[in-house]
Order: sequence, then C-alpha cells, then structure tokens
Amino acid sequence: MARTFVCTYDNPVVETKQGKIRGYIIDGTYTFHGIKYADAKRFQQPTEPASWEGVKDAHSYGYVSPMLNRETAQGEILAPHRYWPKDENCQYLNIWTQSIERDAKKPVMVWFHGGGYSDGSSIEQAAYDGENLSKFGDVVVVTVNHRLNILGYLDLSPYSEKYKNSGNAGNADLVASLKWIRDNIAGFGGDPDNVTIFGQSGGGGKVYTLMQTPEADGLFHKGIIMSGVGDGFPEQGTDSRPLVDAMLLELGLAPEEIENLETVSYEQMAAAYKKVVPAIRAAGGYTGCSPIPNDWYKGDPRKVGFTEHAKTIPVIIGTVISEFGAHSIPNKHGLTEEEQMKLLKEEFGEDAGTLAALFKAAHPTKCVTDVMMLDSFSRVGSKDFACKKAAVSKVPTYNYLFTLEFPLDDGTPAWHCSDIPFFFHNTDKVALTGIPGVADELERKMSGAFVNFARTGDPDVEGLPHWPAVTADVVSTMIFDRECVVRANFDDALYKAFAPHAQNPFQPKKKTFVPH
Amino acid sequence: MARTFVCTYDNPVVETKQGKIRGYIIDGTYTFHGIKYADAKRFQQPTEPASWEGVKDAHSYGYVSPMLNRETAQGEILAPHRYWPKDENCQYLNIWTQSIERDAKKPVMVWFHGGGYSDGSSIEQAAYDGENLSKFGDVVVVTVNHRLNILGYLDLSPYSEKYKNSGNAGNADLVASLKWIRDNIAGFGGDPDNVTIFGQSGGGGKVYTLMQTPEADGLFHKGIIMSGVGDGFPEQGTDSRPLVDAMLLELGLAPEEIENLETVSYEQMAAAYKKVVPAIRAAGGYTGCSPIPNDWYKGDPRKVGFTEHAKTIPVIIGTVISEFGAHSIPNKHGLTEEEQMKLLKEEFGEDAGTLAALFKAAHPTKCVTDVMMLDSFSRVGSKDFACKKAAVSKVPTYNYLFTLEFPLDDGTPAWHCSDIPFFFHNTDKVALTGIPGVADELERKMSGAFVNFARTGDPDVEGLPHWPAVTADVVSTMIFDRECVVRANFDDALYKAFAPHAQNPFQPKKKTFVPH
Repeated sequence: MARTFVCTYDNPVVETKQGKIRGYIIDGTYTFHGIKYADAKRFQQPTEPASWEGVKDAHSYGYVSPMLNRETAQGEILAPHRYWPKDENCQYLNIWTQSIERDAKKPVMVWFHGGGYSDGSSIEQAAYDGENLSKFGDVVVVTVNHRLNILGYLDLSPYSEKYKNSGNAGNADLVASLKWIRDNIAGFGGDPDNVTIFGQSGGGGKVYTLMQTPEADGLFHKGIIMSGVGDGFPEQGTDSRPLVDAMLLELGLAPEEIENLETVSYEQMAAAYKKVVPAIRAAGGYTGCSPIPNDWYKGDPRKVGFTEHAKTIPVIIGTVISEFGAHSIPNKHGLTEEEQMKLLKEEFGEDAGTLAALFKAAHPTKCVTDVMMLDSFSRVGSKDFACKKAAVSKVPTYNYLFTLEFPLDDGTPAWHCSDIPFFFHNTDKVALTGIPGVADELERKMSGAFVNFARTGDPDVEGLPHWPAVTADVVSTMIFDRECVVRANFDDALYKAFAPHAQNPFQPKKKTFVPH
Repeated sequence: MARTFVCTYDNPVVETKQGKIRGYIIDGTYTFHGIKYADAKRFQQPTEPASWEGVKDAHSYGYVSPMLNRETAQGEILAPHRYWPKDENCQYLNIWTQSIERDAKKPVMVWFHGGGYSDGSSIEQAAYDGENLSKFGDVVVVTVNHRLNILGYLDLSPYSEKYKNSGNAGNADLVASLKWIRDNIAGFGGDPDNVTIFGQSGGGGKVYTLMQTPEADGLFHKGIIMSGVGDGFPEQGTDSRPLVDAMLLELGLAPEEIENLETVSYEQMAAAYKKVVPAIRAAGGYTGCSPIPNDWYKGDPRKVGFTEHAKTIPVIIGTVISEFGAHSIPNKHGLTEEEQMKLLKEEFGEDAGTLAALFKAAHPTKCVTDVMMLDSFSRVGSKDFACKKAAVSKVPTYNYLFTLEFPLDDGTPAWHCSDIPFFFHNTDKVALTGIPGVADELERKMSGAFVNFARTGDPDVEGLPHWPAVTADVVSTMIFDRECVVRANFDDALYKAFAPHAQNPFQPKKKTFVPH
C-alpha cells in the first residue's frame, strides 16, 4: 500500500535558531532528515552551525563519520544495516514527530547509536528508523550522528591546550546535539524539559558517559542503557603520548608538528593508527576510541561514583540473554536430556550439572543448552550498575532482560541488537523478528514501557506486570519474552557458578560471535 | 505489523551448480541475497564461481562495484537510496520467488540497475526491492551487481590480446549472470526459457546492448527499456590509446607495463582516470565507461541495425514526461493564463504560443507550464528506437509514457526514476509516491503490464485500455497517469516544434536537474 505524502513549499516548515527547515509528512508523521546541529574543526569542540536565509530541505540523511575499517556486509539477517556516505563533517540529526505545534510539549527520545565509539551511525540499522516509535508513542524521536574513533576520541591534550578535550570530541558532539534540541525542539512539537537519551551497546555507553558530563547537565532528564555496560572491557592507559607519538612517527611528523594531524587525510591518519595500535594495546597503553576521563568527563560511575547530576536521572538498564554468544544447535529442541548433558559436559566439565540446574531455575522455559551461550559480560555489569546507582540515587533505576528465542536455525536465543526492533516498534522492518502472534504484542509492551518511561519516568504499561525499581540489594528484573514476568535476584546464583566459564567478547577464549 | 519469518537449517535450501544455498522466507516469499554468480580477474572475462561443500547462506547483499566519485546523499526524497560496501569482486545477484519447486516454471524478471555504466547497484534505490513484484506477479525477480566504470568498461585491447574484451567486461558480467540464471533458476521456481531483462536509465542501455551481444543470444527472451535511450549522448572515439596512455603516464607506467594496471589500487587508477579524462573528452576521444562495439558487442541498433537475435525479442520501451528537467513552480496551479504565458515567453520567446498550444493538445490535463520541463532527449530517442525496431522485427514493440504529477512543492511532473516504484510495485517504499486513491491502482496497472508482458509477451492488463504495438510509422503510446489512455503519434508535432529548445542533460544549456 502506498502511503500519504505531503511536502509543499511551505509545509512542513519549522523555524530553527539558524533558519527555516522543510521536511515532509508521511502518513501523518512529520519527518526531517539530516539537520546540521553543529560544525567542528578536526579535534576541536563543536560550535553552532552558521545561519542561513530561506528554507533548507531536510530530506536526506546526513554524512556519517568515517570509520577505521572498510565495512563488510555480513549477518544482515541478524541486523539489517544501512550504509551511508561518510565525511568528517557529520554532525547531523534526524527527527520524527506527530506535531509541529510549538506548545505540543511531547516527550523527546534521543537515540545514540551503537558500534562502540568507533563505528555505526544514526541510521546504521534498519531498526533505528524513528517513524513507528514516534507514531505509536506520540513522542518526538531524534537520532544523532557524531564523530567516531580517532576523529572523536583521540586525546591530544598533552601536545597543546587547543586540544584539551579532543579525547572526548565525539561526546562533545552529542552534547551539542542536546543543546540544539534544547534550543529548537519545541518547534518540532517536543518538550525541551522532558528529554530521554537512549542507546544500545556503545550507544548505552554514551548514555552513562553523558550522565557523568557536567556540560550535559540539564540537557536531558532520563536515560535508557541497552546492553551498554560490560564487565571486563579492556583497560587502557591514560597517557596518550606513546600512541600519538607513534602515529606521528609513522606519518613522518615530529611531536612539534602535531597540528599537521589536523590536515592529513583521514585515510592516512587511520592507516597510521591501525599500524601502531596493536603494540600500544599489548602494552596496556592508551588506544583512544572511547571517552577519556578529564575535567570535562568525570569517568565511569561504577569506578568513580555517580555525579550529583547523574543521581537525578531515572534510568532503565538492561541486556539480552545471549548478547555476543548466540547461536543455535541442530535439533536443539529434539535432544534428549542425555544428549543435552553430553554437550554441557564438553563445555563445562564437572560444573555441567550445577549450571544446568541453576539455568533451569532461572529460565525454566528455555532449552538447557542455552546456558552454553549465556552472556555474563553485560548482564553482570548491568546489574552492578543498577545496584550502585540505586544505592546513591533517589530516582528509580529499572532493570530488564530480553530472553526471546528467534526462529533462526533450530531456535537462536536473543543476541546483541536483537531487542532493538522491539523497543523501536520496528519489527516490521527486521525480517527475523517475524514471529506470528508474538512479535506485535511484545513490541507493543517493550516500546510501550520505554515510551511511558520517557513520558512520566514510570515504565509500567498495560499488559505487563508492575515493574519495580532496583534497590541497592534487590534487582527486580522485567523479563521480556512471550510471557513477560518480573523476578527478583533470580539469576545471581547462576552467574556466580557461571563466572569461571564466562567469556569476555573482547578477549574470546573459545567461541566468538560469528553472524550467520 | 511484524511479518512471518522462516529460516531453519534446511529450509529454504536450493541446490545450485556450485553448491547449496540457504535463503529465508518472509511472508511466503523465498528470499536469497548476495549469490555469487561469477568470478573475474580485473579486465578479464568472468568465469564460473568455485564450488563448495555444505550450505552457504545468502542472507546479505553482495559487494557493489567501486565507483569513481565519492557518493553524496542528496535528493533522497526523489529516489531513496541504499548505499553498500564496495569491492571489485562484485558479481552478486539477489532472488525473490514464490516457489522453490523445480517444475514451477514461473516467469523470470532480471533487473539491470541504472547509473549509466559507471554508478549504481542492484540495490541502489529502495524501489529495486524484488519482494513485492515477485509476490504480486508470481514471478521470479532477480537483481544483479556487475563491474562498472573503468573496471567494467575500459578498452585495453590495443595493448594485449588478453584484454580483447576488457571494454565490455561489465556487460560480460551481465551475460554471466544470465548464464547462471539459465543453469540454476529452475531450482528457484523459475523458467529458464522465459527470461525478461529490464532496466532503467543505464539499465535500459544494458538491455539493448545485450540484445546486440551474440553471447547473450538465447539467454533472455524479452526486454524492457525504461528511460534508457537518448538522443544526443556525447559521442566518443573508439581508439582507447590516448586515454590509457595518459592514465599510464599519470601512474608512472610505460605502455609495455600495461599489466601493472591489474594490480594498482582502484583508487589510484580512478584518480589517474579522473585527472586525464577531461582533456580526452574535450578532444572527442574514447573515454570508456560504456560498452564499446567490437566482435563481442555489435553496437547501438539505431546506428548499426538490429541483430537477427534482437529482432526476435519483444520489447517495451518508454520514458517519463520530464526526466532530468523536472521541478515545480510556486503556485503553479493558481497562475492565470497570462502569468503562465509570461513564464513561457521568458523561456521560449516567440515560440511560446505554439508550444503552449501543442503541449495542451498532447497533454490536455497538464499545467501548460510543464512544457518548460519537457524531456526530449529520452522521448524522441525511444520513439525512434521503437519505430526502427518495429520496421524490422516480427515480434511486438510497445511504447509508454509516464506523466503522473507528484505532490511535491506545488506539483512536480514525473522525473527520471520516478516511475520505478510503480513498475516495481514498491510505492510503499518511496514516500513521495504516496498519492491516496491513485498510487495503489496505478502501480497495479503498471507492474501488472510488465508482469503480463514477462509472462506472455502481451502487456494487456485488466483496467488498462488495449495496448497496441508500435509499427514503423505509428507509435501507439500507453500513457500511465491517474487515467491511463492510449494515443497514437500524439506528440510528434510538439517535439518538432520543441526541438530548438530541447536540452541535452549531458550538455545542459540553461537548467540542470538539481534534486530538491
């Protein structure tokens, strides 16, 4: 079915601080793609974009940040991608809204994409499209591009005062996007005083790092961290000089010529980085490509404590059951108990029986062999984050776990990114989510919980049991699945027994996540 | 609404000549993305891909050909794009089908993408997705990537016998895709004896050049050329040595070192080409990037005559009313006759009155100011092609013109590519086609005509008037619009009067097509 399209010379046109912007209306949703929210010189903090006369069209997504490695299209069945032209000049955002009335004051949900701090974009996954969520929740959805990897996170502060926050330039772009939203979102029907930032994987990291960034205080009011906290990320040093000196040497530059880094091509700079970084990494040195604690960014709250501002932010934090370890097993649901235990013994040795029992207790409806794919990295870290926040914060923190089994192979437990189409109300856009009689209802509950949280701070939604907040000692977890239930401290014993077998996706011991 | 997904270890799996391939089923459509149909060394003819053991997944689109210029996302409202990772190793095709029964023998429709012979891909436009067309028409849809620009069309034959057909390597890939289809499509429910090739712009060019390529004889049985013929393409010479010598010089190579071109990076080769080609072009020399007539490709049928094989191919050929010149005029439908004529006089001088009258006679329901955006380049060339073919061919040739006005600005006449969503039954995927009460019915008729032509050679379809074939003297044109009508030789006088004002999109005199 074709849809209903409107785009005349003067509709929809919104006045922003810098000038007028025209989008289009599709089936009633006002749509604006590729709005420039900031400009920035390489390694510098972002500034407000220049103003213009007349009307600019916002009909095409903006450039995405250059990336270190050539993209390869694999595993599209697991997470359909959208690739896009790249340029350093990448401070663009996109808006979907149901109203452009200035006093509509609808909740604003701002999506920070994943891909660590090195990859991805606001439109990288088909599931990031904001139209459905805006329409379903009557919210203003904003998605944001920003500088990544060595453009966004390379600390040059030891070389010159002018680079004092280059190590967090990518996060500074995010703050600039939130300032643009503060200044302009009312014209798009949004409430600048009710902004929720949410993101998955690296995007979840962006949420908690902005909670710890004083310049962002007051620019957002709630946060959702999806699979964005990990236990056992590779530690890196804080002195960037060994890395940057090696890059400069590789480029034939002396440390005094640091400013030449502003003008060498990205490709050259990336090649130099990629050549020198393995040795730096092996030595535990600073490797860039993620925010560095300094005056501007206060550091991981689990290590340094939550800032006073972070304590005022209600948070939803959660993960999916298998994250990076998901795969299937032939005839998985047809195996006898004996065959299952044979597999578990191969994997876990003498702990197999204990783990099987604990997994069954935690996940009674699941196939016991799924314990072989259990994520520990994200789940343990997220529970820890939730408890630490609950211990110091008067506003609620909620925890979830997404455990749906997907109809791929002989049944594949939820993997990293597989929850996004549900929370974004986009199961129509991701083939693999197509489970008749399940997907539509589950996405209504999952995206409904996020929308209600964004609107009021309370994620309760019709059809879900009441979702209690986490306390310092009790993690009440909303388990999203065919049947949604809340359980408290239900998998602590499992993870305690599982710890010796837990895999770090960044330092794989046995299996790695190979997309089908 | 979520959709219904199936992908188990053994379903859907199809055995091909080289090995087993697994796709997935979405709402009943069997879907296979990124099947390798050939391998090729740079500048060489393609060969059959290597065989494999076990089952390969065809779940991700394949690499697309590298391109000379960096892509920039603009005008997405006019033709939403999909960008994709690039690699020379780009011989991939995609299949959508309603059956994988070996004796289903459904018509096969093979899409060759546009972008001249230099740009684009099988998935470049959102409108190229094959699912809807396959489902609506119960046909097997195949879309094809192949080598482009200097990888696919750089004649090195003067330098070595081993490069004798490098000037048509990109088209040789297309022939290889048709051989793969001949050998394997029955396994995907398709009839290898009923293959229609269709394409738009450069893709239309690919259709008629393959009609003139003896190696493709028997591999396809019908052709559809959409906006793919032009009157006044820049002529280029046939001696490739000035171009290639200049490229070699730029790369620091002697003509005897021609084989080094096989191993320099694409980026270096492209940079050399882009540096030297303007002077060659100015001198009217060979510039590559399109098929070169030789023993393998017989040349443009309008110049050299139709091959005996081409005469056996039923053809639909057509264009859209404004192609590269489309834009709107403020308050277009509110202008008085006087105001309209003022604009026309500014554009056409003393011919304004004649052109207005002839345009009104040809297109009585259109705003007379649309004559300022009239395409001549493609329409005149396509009518000429149709008549010349009808004069020598016993099988039918059909002509169409797509004249729909779109709800952009104050009404924009159909532009280059705007017909594709309708013929592909994909108006749900292209926002701008959303005209309530019009789009669904029109796409049913337009895609229905193509499907019936593919099935039987006759494009007649319920709801459309009978569509007569072109003769050597009479061009009966199916006009696709809110109301579809057939008219014979209805715009010859218009184009005769318009000729002095006609613009060549490759040599713009006044206006150029600037996407909004």
